[in-house]
Formats: sequence, C-alpha cells, structure tokens
Amino acid sequence: MRGAAHREVVDRMRAFFGGKSVVLIGATDRSPWSIWTHANLRQYSPDAVVHVVHPHHEEVHGQAVLKSLKALDEPVDLAYIMVPTSAVLEVMNEVADAGITNVVILTAGFGEAGAEGAELESRLVDLAHTRGLTVLGPNGNGFINAAGGLTPYSLLITPPLEVGPVGIVLQSGGLASAVLAGAQARGIGISLLVSTGNEALTSASDIMRYLIEDDQTKVIAAFIESVRQPDEFREVCELALIAGKPIVALKTGRSEAGAKAALAHTGALAGDDRVVDAAFRQLGVIRVNTLEELLSTAGYLGHHLEIRGRRIAAITPSGGACDLLADLASEEQLEFPEFPPDTLAELGRLLPSFSNPQNPLDVTGYIVMDPRIALQSLEIVGRDVAGNYDMVLYTATIPRAEPPNPAMVEERMNALAEASKALAVPLILQSLISLDVTPYSHKLLGDRGLYLLSGIEPGMRAIGHGARYHDRRDRWLAVGPPITTPTIEVPAGAQGVWPEHMVRGLLEAHGIPVAPARLATSAQEAKAFAEEFGGPVAMKVASSALAHKSDIGGVALGVDTDQVTSTFDDLRNRLAVALPEATLDGVLVGPMRTGGVELLVGVVTDPTWGKVLSLGLGGVWVEVLGDVALRVLPVGPGEINVMLSELKGAALLSGARGTRPVDIDRLVAVVYQIAQLAEGLGEALDTLEVNPLRVDGDCVEVLDALAVWRDEGGSK
Amino acid sequence: MRGAAHREVVDRMRAFFGGKSVVLIGATDRSPWSIWTHANLRQYSPDAVVHVVHPHHEEVHGQAVLKSLKALDEPVDLAYIMVPTSAVLEVMNEVADAGITNVVILTAGFGEAGAEGAELESRLVDLAHTRGLTVLGPNGNGFINAAGGLTPYSLLITPPLEVGPVGIVLQSGGLASAVLAGAQARGIGISLLVSTGNEALTSASDIMRYLIEDDQTKVIAAFIESVRQPDEFREVCELALIAGKPIVALKTGRSEAGAKAALAHTGALAGDDRVVDAAFRQLGVIRVNTLEELLSTAGYLGHHLEIRGRRIAAITPSGGACDLLADLASEEQLEFPEFPPDTLAELGRLLPSFSNPQNPLDVTGYIVMDPRIALQSLEIVGRDVAGNYDMVLYTATIPRAEPPNPAMVEERMNALAEASKALAVPLILQSLISLDVTPYSHKLLGDRGLYLLSGIEPGMRAIGHGARYHDRRDRWLAVGPPITTPTIEVPAGAQGVWPEHMVRGLLEAHGIPVAPARLATSAQEAKAFAEEFGGPVAMKVASSALAHKSDIGGVALGVDTDQVTSTFDDLRNRLAVALPEATLDGVLVGPMRTGGVELLVGVVTDPTWGKVLSLGLGGVWVEVLGDVALRVLPVGPGEINVMLSELKGAALLSGARGTRPVDIDRLVAVVYQIAQLAEGLGEALDTLEVNPLRVDGDCVEVLDALAVWRDEGGSK
Repeated sequence: MRGAAHREVVDRMRAFFGGKSVVLIGATDRSPWSIWTHANLRQYSPDAVVHVVHPHHEEVHGQAVLKSLKALDEPVDLAYIMVPTSAVLEVMNEVADAGITNVVILTAGFGEAGAEGAELESRLVDLAHTRGLTVLGPNGNGFINAAGGLTPYSLLITPPLEVGPVGIVLQSGGLASAVLAGAQARGIGISLLVSTGNEALTSASDIMRYLIEDDQTKVIAAFIESVRQPDEFREVCELALIAGKPIVALKTGRSEAGAKAALAHTGALAGDDRVVDAAFRQLGVIRVNTLEELLSTAGYLGHHLEIRGRRIAAITPSGGACDLLADLASEEQLEFPEFPPDTLAELGRLLPSFSNPQNPLDVTGYIVMDPRIALQSLEIVGRDVAGNYDMVLYTATIPRAEPPNPAMVEERMNALAEASKALAVPLILQSLISLDVTPYSHKLLGDRGLYLLSGIEPGMRAIGHGARYHDRRDRWLAVGPPITTPTIEVPAGAQGVWPEHMVRGLLEAHGIPVAPARLATSAQEAKAFAEEFGGPVAMKVASSALAHKSDIGGVALGVDTDQVTSTFDDLRNRLAVALPEATLDGVLVGPMRTGGVELLVGVVTDPTWGKVLSLGLGGVWVEVLGDVALRVLPVGPGEINVMLSELKGAALLSGARGTRPVDIDRLVAVVYQIAQLAEGLGEALDTLEVNPLRVDGDCVEVLDALAVWRDEGGSK
Repeated sequence: MRGAAHREVVDRMRAFFGGKSVVLIGATDRSPWSIWTHANLRQYSPDAVVHVVHPHHEEVHGQAVLKSLKALDEPVDLAYIMVPTSAVLEVMNEVADAGITNVVILTAGFGEAGAEGAELESRLVDLAHTRGLTVLGPNGNGFINAAGGLTPYSLLITPPLEVGPVGIVLQSGGLASAVLAGAQARGIGISLLVSTGNEALTSASDIMRYLIEDDQTKVIAAFIESVRQPDEFREVCELALIAGKPIVALKTGRSEAGAKAALAHTGALAGDDRVVDAAFRQLGVIRVNTLEELLSTAGYLGHHLEIRGRRIAAITPSGGACDLLADLASEEQLEFPEFPPDTLAELGRLLPSFSNPQNPLDVTGYIVMDPRIALQSLEIVGRDVAGNYDMVLYTATIPRAEPPNPAMVEERMNALAEASKALAVPLILQSLISLDVTPYSHKLLGDRGLYLLSGIEPGMRAIGHGARYHDRRDRWLAVGPPITTPTIEVPAGAQGVWPEHMVRGLLEAHGIPVAPARLATSAQEAKAFAEEFGGPVAMKVASSALAHKSDIGGVALGVDTDQVTSTFDDLRNRLAVALPEATLDGVLVGPMRTGGVELLVGVVTDPTWGKVLSLGLGGVWVEVLGDVALRVLPVGPGEINVMLSELKGAALLSGARGTRPVDIDRLVAVVYQIAQLAEGLGEALDTLEVNPLRVDGDCVEVLDALAVWRDEGGSK
C-alpha cells in the first residue's frame, strides 16, 4: 500500500485526528469515562465544539443534552461512542445517518471477549465498511492530539499537556495513561497519542502512516502486543526509514508466558520472539524492553535525531559518573576518544591541581567553589570538537526547585544555552540519576530550548540506540529494500516430506552446489558408482518414507570399495526392519567428505512473518548453544554476510583453531541461492533445510537436505 | 577481623556517627561547602551543638566564630575540617590537642592528586595513628546520619530527609547527592549515608560493619569504585550474610575504559571484572549496574526482606502490564502459577464478561466504572495464597495529586491497607511506570505503612534480586564459608615455569590422577616404555626451558611401537632446532587417550582477589566462546558443582551428542583437589593450569599441566 493508497490512509487519519467538533454519545455523569473525556476536551481542546447525547438525561457534564443525533443542528467531525456493547451497532448506523464518518468506540466486549464478541466485531467491521465509517477501537481509550488540540480520551489527563516531537501508538489502553504520565514526568512533549484498542478497522500501522507524514512528529513510540498485519507493518517501517522517523517499539511476548498473556487479552497470536527481533532489526525498528526505555529513547531521538556518530566528549563534576559513563559506553559501543594534547594542557591549567583531565572529564567537586569551571571546560573542549566528536555530553544536576538566588541559576543556564549554540556539535544534557523533571527544571530548560536526558544509564542506552538506528538506516538506504525473488515453479509431486535424494535435483536445478552422489538401486550398481568415484564412499539409504536416515542407522561413512555390496544389503535390511512398509528408492553413493566447517541453513515458515532464514554452525553450536542468526526473507547477500558475523563461532570461518579460512563470498552466494529458492517456491514450501552445508576454503557444498511441503500428501 | 576487633570498629563507628556536637573548622560564608554543611546541621540535626572556627572571621553563618579550637569551652564529638590542603595536618594536631578523636576531612588534594598528594596522605595516616584519630576522608562529603540526627554533609540536602531502612556507602562524593535525591524521589528512607572519599583510614568496609550492627538498617547499598582490601570486604560480606542484611552493590569498572576512569580519580586498581562478578556472587553481594537499580533493589529489600520465594499472584487493571510482567518474570525466573479453579470461577463471576481471568490478572479497564473490582479480586485471590504463592503483586497507579474527592481516595487506600494485612503473604505495591513518588502519594502510602515499587521493570528486577539473594544466603548458611586449605609445602626448585614433566609429580603427590607416562631419556628407553604400555603411545618432548610443547611440534600422538625410536630422535631434533640452548630432559611416553570430554582447570592469581579458579570445556568452548566459570578460592565441592552447571556446554557432560555421561562427583572431586593444591601452595604459586583434564565416564585424568611460580628463577 504505497503511493495513492498510502496517501488515502494518511488523509483519512488526518481528518480523523484533526476534527474541530465531537459528539459524545452515551454521555452520563455516572461514568468516569464520560466525565473525563468531557473534561479533557474542555481543558485541552479549547477550540473544539463538544456535543453530548443521551436519550434519558437533560443535562450532563453541565451541558444541555441532545436526546439523539437527529437533534444535531450542525455537521460534526467525530463521534465518540460510550454506549453499552449491545447498542453499539445501532448507534453506528445513527452516526452514519447523521453524516458523521469518524468514530471512536470506547465500548468493550468485542473481539477480546470470546466467540460471541468476535462475531459482533465482525458485524461491526461489515457495518463500518457498508456505511463508510472510519473507526478507532472498539475497546480503546480514544486519542490525544496534543499538537492539533483535539483530545477525546477517556482517562483524565493531568496537566500540563505538552506538545512535542513524540507520536505514541499503544495496543494497550491500560498503559496509555501510564506512558503519558511517564512522558510528562520526563519533560517529553507529544504530538499525538492513540490507544488503538481491538484495531477492528484502524490499525497501529494506519496511525504510524499518519505520524510519518505529520510534520510535528519526529519519532514514533509504539507499544505493540502483536503485529497483526506484517506486510502492512513492514511497509510502514520502510516508509519510516525513508522519511527518517525512527520507530521505537516495545513489543511484548518475549517469553512463552508473555505470549500466553498476550493471547488471552488481545486475541492475537504472538510469534517466535527471536523472529520478531530479527524482523525489527531488518526494518530499522528500535526495539526496547521497558516503558522507561521506550520514553527515554523516543525523547532523546525527538530532540537529538541529528546526532549520528558514536564519539562523545563528556563533562561532569563527578568521578563516579565518569566510571558509569565509561562502563556504559563500552556496552553500547560508544566512544570517548582522548582529548587532544592542547585541550588537556588547557584543562590542566583551568582545573584544580588534584584533578586528572581526560575524557570523560571530571571537573571535580571544586565546581561547588567555582561553578564557572564546568562552562570553561565546556568551552575548552568545544574548541576541538568539530571532526573529532559527534556530540558533547554534559552530565550534571539541573536545579529542581527555585533556589534563594534564582537569578544566578538563570544566568548559568543562559551561559549553558549560549555555550550550546557556540558548539560545532550538539550538546546533550543529562542528569546523574533518573528523576522526574520538575516544573522548575522544565521551565529552566524549555525556555532555552534545552532538553534533559534523565539518568546516566537511560541516557547512554538512548544514545546507543540512536547510533545503531542511523547505521541501520544508512545501510538500508544504501542497499534499498531487499528484492523479492521471482516465483519459482513448484516441482511435480511437491507434497509431504522430501528427503535428500528427492530434494537434490531441486537444489541442483537452481544452481546450488550439492556434493556428488548417485542413487544406486542395486548392490552391483552401488559398487560400480563407488569404483567410478574411487576411494572410500558415503552410502545413505533412500526412501521417500524416511526423512531422517541416521535415525535408523541408514548412513554408512568411509565405505571401502570392497565393502560396498555388503553395505548396500545391510542398509536395505535396516530400512526393511525399521519401516517394513517403506519402499526402498535406492542407496545414495558419493565420495567421502571430511574436514572443513559444517553449517546449517534452514528456511522455515513463521505464522506471522512468513519465510525465515536461519543460519548457524553445525554440531554443538546449534544443538547445545542454539546459536543461529535469523532473518525474515527476502534478504540480500549483504545481510547474509552480517548474519555470519553474528554467530558466536564466527571465528571458525576465518580460520580459528587451524581450519582453512572460508571463502565468505562463495558461502554467502550459496546461502543466498538457498534462500532465494525457498522464497521463490512460495506458499507451497513449508521448510527447506540444508544440514550440513560443508565449507572448506572455497569449496561450498550441500551434504544433506530436506524439504517439507505445505501439502501433507501421503508420505510420512 | 571478627569478634572483639569487629566490635571495636563498630563501637568506634557508632561513636563517630552518633555524636551530639560538631565543630566546623575553616568555616566561612565564602564557601558553599561551609554554608551547606552548616545549613544541613541546623535543619536536620536539631539536637546537635555546632561550633564554627575560623582564625580571621568574627561571625560566620550567623554564628559567633571561635578563633581557634583552644577557645572551645566544652568537649566536642566531631571535627569537620574544611581548611586548605596545606593546613590539614596542622589542624589535625590541634583537633587532637583539643581532645577530639573523630574527624571528617572534606579537603581534597591527597591520594587522588599524584605522588605529592599521596605522600601527604601517608603523613596524614601516620598522624592519625599517632594521635588516635578516627578519620573519614579526606576528599569526601561527610555523612548524613538520618536516623541519629547528625548531618555534617557538605552539599545541600533538599527536604524531606526521611529515615528508613537503607544504609548507603559511596566511594564517589559526586554521586552521593544524586543517590540521595534518587532515594528521596522514590520514597526510600535512609538510615545513614556516607561518602568515604579517599578512605585513608576509614574504609567502606568499616562503615558496612557498623551498618550490619545498626538496628535501623535493613539493607546496605554501596557504590564501589574499587575493593581496596578484599580480605576485609570478604569478611564484612560474610557477617552481612549471617546477619541477613543484603548488600546491594554498584561496582564500576565493568569495561576496560571504565577501569581506566576509575584508576584516574581514585588511585585504585580495578581488577578483572569477571572476577569481581564471581567474588560478589560467592559473597552473596547483589550486584547491580545502574544507580536506579541500586535504589529500586535496596528499597524493595528494605521493605520486603521477608519475601523469599518466586511465586507471584499479580493483579493489575492493565492487560499490557500483564504482558510486561510475564516477560520479566521469565527473565528473572519468577513464576505466576495458575490460579486454582475455584479462584478462577469466582473471578469469572466478579469480572466483566469480556475479561479472561488468569495469573497475572487483568481486572480490565472496567475498574474505572467500578473501582471495587480490584480489591474484590485481591480478596478472592487472597483466599488461596497461603502455600501457593510467596507474594501478591498489585500493579496499578497510585494517585499522585490530591483529587477533588480526597476522602474517596483515602477510603480506598484504607481498604487496600486492610486487605494487605488480611493476606497470608506480603502484598507488594508497584506502579506501572517509574515516576517520582509525589509528596501526596508518599503520604497516602506512608500513613498506612505501604511502600511502592516504582515501575514494572525496576520492580520485577528487584524481586528477582531478592529471590536470588535468599537462595544464595540459604546455601551459604547451609554450607558455611569455604574452609581454607592447610598450607602445602612448596617443592624444591619452585621457580619460573614448570612444564608437564616437572609438575606431574607434584600433582600425583597430592592424589590428583594423572594419565600414565614415563620420562624416557633415550630412544631405547622410550621404546621399552612403549612396549610396556602396549598399543600406540603419545610422546611429548620435555625440557624445563619449554612451556608449550606443541608450539615447536613437540608432541607426537598415536605413535606405533616400531616408530618410537625414530620419533624420539625427531622430537629431540625439533627441540634442538627451536631452542638450541635448551636442555632435553627427555621425552614423555604414555598410552594414547581418545574420546571423552576435555576440560580446562586453571588457577590464576588476581591482583585484588588472589587465587581464582577457572573451569571450562576445552577446544572451541574456551578458545572461541571464552566460556569459563570463575570462583575466588577457597571454594568447596558444592560450588564447583554449580560452576559446571554454569557452563554453556554443560549438556556435554551429561551425555549430549552421544558422549558418555560424566561421573560428576568424580570430576568435582578432582577439580577440588587441583584447587586445594593451588591454594595450599600459597603465594609461591602464580598459576596452575591443567589443560586438558580428560573426562570419560568415571575416568578423570590430567593429560597436560603447567605451573608458574612467583619466583621467576632462571628458566624461560
């Protein structure tokens, strides 16, 4: 959905959130939801016209009540429905009759409430389509358009509601107000906050499309319980990458228990979390694990999106803070390059003799006696920042309450703001520990266009996220979205499980190197093949009924030529004993392979994300350590290269422990071929696994493989 | 230092922090330090008598000045020195002359300030010893004895200063006030806060000794830049374990860069961080990585130390919160056992039809319409908690500002407090997101003896820390401190490096099983040995000058009997070519060993912690993955068993991938013998490395080993 279709959604959402009049349907003084929604509109939507409708009341929320929508005497932009579940569909019809097309449904009892609720929700969807309604919800809290001044939101908003760069989308209504309070406490202004509820019609992706196009929004923060439409989501993420608006997402369901909890109250299936991780990384989505990290990261990016690199010059009055900064920098791959000698010399002259100038710089507790040393240090450090550093970090305590001498504080903050402007790189302010930004601090900062990262750890994590985001976005922009492979014709008889001897031809037909082997149907033929190959051979029993040959001892390795006929008979017997009804298709005979490194290359189908490529080193690496790199297909060769580097045993590929260094380009090319084949076969293919793929220097070849087709067929 | 010596320190510290009169020396209205220290004493030490001394002022801080200590007309408990560095020692003499024994030195410019400062500090130490002074600092901020009402602390304390269960020790003055502000913002009361400065005489361990014996203190929070006296620290940690007072420690220097920063401003050497991790775990110290985690963990333990288990029954009005709780529980090994059928049935009757009762329980947003459902759910869940759950977690928003109807809020909080008392297990309150606890919330909670964990993630991490702490403490109490091995006589000639043929005898003499081998000094002898052993043999060149035989190709494996004499000559030649001046001690001849699992067992000497045992699987496990378990010696067999289970490849020991399951008891016994030998040899031994230790079923034997002695001797 790009171009015109994308525009259509954006325009529809803009109209939805940008209305100037609201009618609250089912308004009553007995419902806190109704009271609060009305109060929010009164306080934060001063320009909006608000109507209230209830069939049995005369006055609600101090305002005259309309008995029905028919009594409306002017066009209204948005209907906010709070009626009981059973009345919602009827009211939707009335809304449509009144010429209103935008509807928020607060009422619960739909898709989240068992089969009956799901049936009702499906009727709601049909009705919305029939009547041309844009619906947010049901079972959501509505929205807060802080930038646009429309706040039909059902939980009381504590002032001040500050406009700012962060757009927030939540699939949890219960957390929406907590996230809002968290943003307010951290001095993070918002553009729009939406609680999407059941997403019967309007999805989180739709909201994100709007936020991407919204000038007020610089960064998108999302609380996601499940990615319901992965194709939509992927597209939105790509549009966000192009637009340069980071998406910071807290996606729950990391644990099995978490997935169960998500299942219970949203009706959506949580996929394998490692696949989610991979998909987010591929799409440039910054994944965070806590509400706190969601806000600190979004707040940082909202104010410092221009910072691209990792090189920090830091100034703080605490040696302990220097230690913490250094520890976190190492974990986040951020750097504190040494100050140039001239800078060090000047700092040495400025600071007390007991100081020890270095980066991060401890100006020492002497700042208490002479507060100017911090700004003077900033000035000295600032002279050399261009080209050497990507940012200057000023980690200190900002006054939280008005002191006896406010003029002095104001003056120092002015000097800091001036210093910030004079710097060739951005200045980041950071407090020593996470605390709410008090109204006093907030004003001190806000009046001077300054933003405070709250806490050393949250701040450094946010800076790390920012650096990684820019790296990924740059790479994505350079390479572009991976090209989808053309469809490959599904071979005849593609059903059930195809063991090695059946899948070899498919691999070879698509240019994938497979270790030589021939299918012998008699002991004599096997011997002839072995003599042709020369030297010891590997022999593997082949039957369409047998997926895993070694389970029945169906593999013989290093068989000398004179043992081939008896081995053939032995393998045939093993099959007959283990699976009496299986047909022997023959015995694969091929030259023995030893040495090199073995890899596993698998493509499986994830219920949410579709085809997923997994790549790992064989043996203990996969079996004991579970060490695999994952990517949602399609991927290009560049990304496969990155996958290899992610493996814990990556060093083995470059010749650690005496193995031959692997020809990485050749390996990547073969893995790419396998991925393309699996992707091109489309929905017919469930799984394609090459295990092992043997790599020895520049020799890369499939030693064994297996395909599982969606059509289960008759074989086992 | 136990028994009487420990008591002496505790009594000394108690007198130090518990004084009732202070003299500020160098007091001046020109120094914020002086102003603030005085203001803090005035505001938070109402019962304390405060004197100010300055040679040239008449009045300071609105108080008449004494020209010198001689003018004191009554005994004073504590001297607080703020004079210039050069005057400190002279003033200390005057203090002693005045009969004052307790001294805080704020002044900087000592050990942290290069060689000259270190020299001055050493004179300061001598003077203190000579004059019998107890000194805190220099270069610290003093202390805040909130419980005892004595607050000679040099940075302004923002009210309210709340008394509570957390004792805080910091090796960073610059962070002390940030930690205090963080504690205040989180509603965490403190007993004592001490900024230890350079620890010239009074160490963090001394403070901790006092806190362990202080009734007001339930938990100790420490910010540690370096463990200066590991023996002291170990002892204190053991006393804390016995007393059941958890130590929560933020130790910096996790990164190399961090270690460098720590070096710069404290003059102390940070050891290998993995050893710190191991030592802390062994000593039951809860290691945290951020100031925020330090406070949330200490606050939780200060109020909920009685909670021992991992089974949580949780209630919240947010489905999104349930997801977050479940994810975090899985990461922290906490559990949400299913509710019994009766509980589920009752919850089903209570909650709206669209809810889906389970643990963690989402009472749904309907709580807005009917706030009673949360407490009613708590009551229902509460009926079955005894024996099934270790705690009930109530995750919700506590009002932050006085609402229009405060009585209703008060009433609900009363009901919550009542419900808490009625529960058979502790109730934990937790907010949905980290926010400062406002004065209003704090009063609501405090008046009812309730404590709020701020934020889902910090809260769940703290609960996880608590569960692990109790596990470790229980194990430690059951086993007791590991018994130090009796001293073992250092063998003659213990210098330089001892390769395998030299160290074998030492191992055998202490009962450690070594694979058979004999040292042949001629080809004929080698052949005779090989024939004696029968079958193929392993042959290894032996020279006291050669530590690593394989570096010069000095190992021949699987040598058939008829190849032994030529191999002997070959090995002798290899040595002669590689190290012409080395003497051939002979060639080790032993039966070939194949199969089994190989381990590395090493004991090295850490500059801070002394002998450290490292244990890992051989090959890629150590070389590529760096997968080793570490413990500071001494350790008992039980702990070695735990070390094995920590290895990523632990499954290989129990027979994964077709290996023979290892006799773990036998393996543990041999590793224990190796550790005891290394420990017993004491300071003479630098390193003892067995690599590999081969394990095959119940056969455990050393295949190769190396010792490095402290005395470097003449060999290379």
